[in-house]
Amino acid sequence: MAHPHLDKVKEYLLDLQERLCEGLAAEDGAAFREDSWTRESGGGGRSRVIENGHVFEKGGVNFSHVFGERLPASASAARPKLAGRSFHAVGVSWVLHPHNPHVPTAHGNVRFFIAEKDDADPVWWFGGGFDLTPFYPVFEDVVHWHRVARDTCQPFGDDVYPRFKQWCDDYFKLHHRGETRGVGGLFFDDLNEWDFEHCFAFQQAVGDAFLDAYLPIVRGRREMPYGERERDFQAFRRGRYVEFNLVWDRGTLFGLQSGGRTESILMSMPPLAQWQYCWEPEPGSDEARLGDEFLHPREWLEEAEV
Amino acid sequence: MAHPHLDKVKEYLLDLQERLCEGLAAEDGAAFREDSWTRESGGGGRSRVIENGHVFEKGGVNFSHVFGERLPASASAARPKLAGRSFHAVGVSWVLHPHNPHVPTAHGNVRFFIAEKDDADPVWWFGGGFDLTPFYPVFEDVVHWHRVARDTCQPFGDDVYPRFKQWCDDYFKLHHRGETRGVGGLFFDDLNEWDFEHCFAFQQAVGDAFLDAYLPIVRGRREMPYGERERDFQAFRRGRYVEFNLVWDRGTLFGLQSGGRTESILMSMPPLAQWQYCWEPEPGSDEARLGDEFLHPREWLEEAEV
Repeated sequence: MAHPHLDKVKEYLLDLQERLCEGLAAEDGAAFREDSWTRESGGGGRSRVIENGHVFEKGGVNFSHVFGERLPASASAARPKLAGRSFHAVGVSWVLHPHNPHVPTAHGNVRFFIAEKDDADPVWWFGGGFDLTPFYPVFEDVVHWHRVARDTCQPFGDDVYPRFKQWCDDYFKLHHRGETRGVGGLFFDDLNEWDFEHCFAFQQAVGDAFLDAYLPIVRGRREMPYGERERDFQAFRRGRYVEFNLVWDRGTLFGLQSGGRTESILMSMPPLAQWQYCWEPEPGSDEARLGDEFLHPREWLEEAEV
Repeated sequence: MAHPHLDKVKEYLLDLQERLCEGLAAEDGAAFREDSWTRESGGGGRSRVIENGHVFEKGGVNFSHVFGERLPASASAARPKLAGRSFHAVGVSWVLHPHNPHVPTAHGNVRFFIAEKDDADPVWWFGGGFDLTPFYPVFEDVVHWHRVARDTCQPFGDDVYPRFKQWCDDYFKLHHRGETRGVGGLFFDDLNEWDFEHCFAFQQAVGDAFLDAYLPIVRGRREMPYGERERDFQAFRRGRYVEFNLVWDRGTLFGLQSGGRTESILMSMPPLAQWQYCWEPEPGSDEARLGDEFLHPREWLEEAEV
């Protein structure tokens, strides 16, 4: 199956991976290492990982292009009928787990799917977004993050940021905990409501915005002092990150169902996580503030601009 | 919905919980704490948890009885048509995460389900088993574990141990890693091939056998010296335990789908887990022996008795 759009998107994604790694490595001072892999049933990827850097305890920026005869059901929420068709899936995913608990964990992804239809043109759609998971959140950081998200969406219509901001809140939800994973950002899937060029432009805008959204926050918090208490809380919250990724994340499920490379998919796992039975932060503590004030959907920009 | 069998099974399970906690606390020297909880849509449970004991870093023995109008699909592998019927589910689950990496992690569960049929007698079935997850496995321990399993099954037929041993190997498999969770034991589900009394007797035999299977191994290994290297490897392997429980375990899924109590369901999570990208033990090391020799199905008893 050949598709005229695929090479264009792929070229952008490989370049995005390059630029994300450059920007993050420049901030960190340490380098990413690279692994290339191939998938027996079609495709492969280029994983870039940083471990024990100066800022990032663990992080990865992974490109993959997989294809095959049977699209897994998890690939598309809106189009269950496409499951089982031959497909291409190409994307870049990234996750950063900083050492310093004052620096939020961040995640982003941009992806493009094509599924064959028997006697019609193939169906294509884009997905992507970025979301932030702080441990000791700072309101101004969250506002900055969402301002970049809004400014990225603005040229594509006034309704784009509110829709994809809400989708992000809805998607990154730990249903079994009654909390969001973090403070959100943007999430979109099944995007083909505009023509290809316009959708692709939007995907590029989202990918390109990530460093502007994240690096100023990293710079502002990376030198803040912390101790065992903060690291413990970070490990506890990273347990929740694991729960989201393994129980609820459709991307992880798609990767595992489609025979992706396990080590690349689970690159998103934090370096260290902890679980204590019924642990709760002390009421009124900095740790309690996270859940009390930040782990439910809020209109950050409206609050900031009142 | 009332069912004559339910009270009998429940009484056994509550007593089993009591005896398991007594036996484990006597070995540990520290006590379990108890939490009772109720479930909004029907039922509740009694959770007993030990943390930072002398032997057990974290462990739990949880009783629950939940009921409701719609049986989740994950309750029965063999009877998808029962999904959506009104049901009772009663069970005890236990997980022990020892401090010492030379002491294996152990898990067990016995459960009983009843699902209503509109105009016929309700359907009931039993499930359960126990399985062992060593970090630094000792062949003789694995043989002891499986001997207890076999001797437990023997009075119920020669085919019972081989069937439920294989089911355990098949069930506790990390498909995305191509390895088993540990060295297996027994697993059974959808059991109603004998009459109620006989099935119930088997469930009791399995529940009652656990301490005989596990405590001799704990006693033999709990004083073995270990250091940072062994603790690191334990944390790494506990990451795999998390992956199994959150990605593949139908019991965890059933709990989360049926609106069970999250802290009781995720009591099974290890206290600490770690993920390193593409980490592999050094060939020929004690750590490599685990995967090379123990994390694929073997006929332990045949090998031991040759």
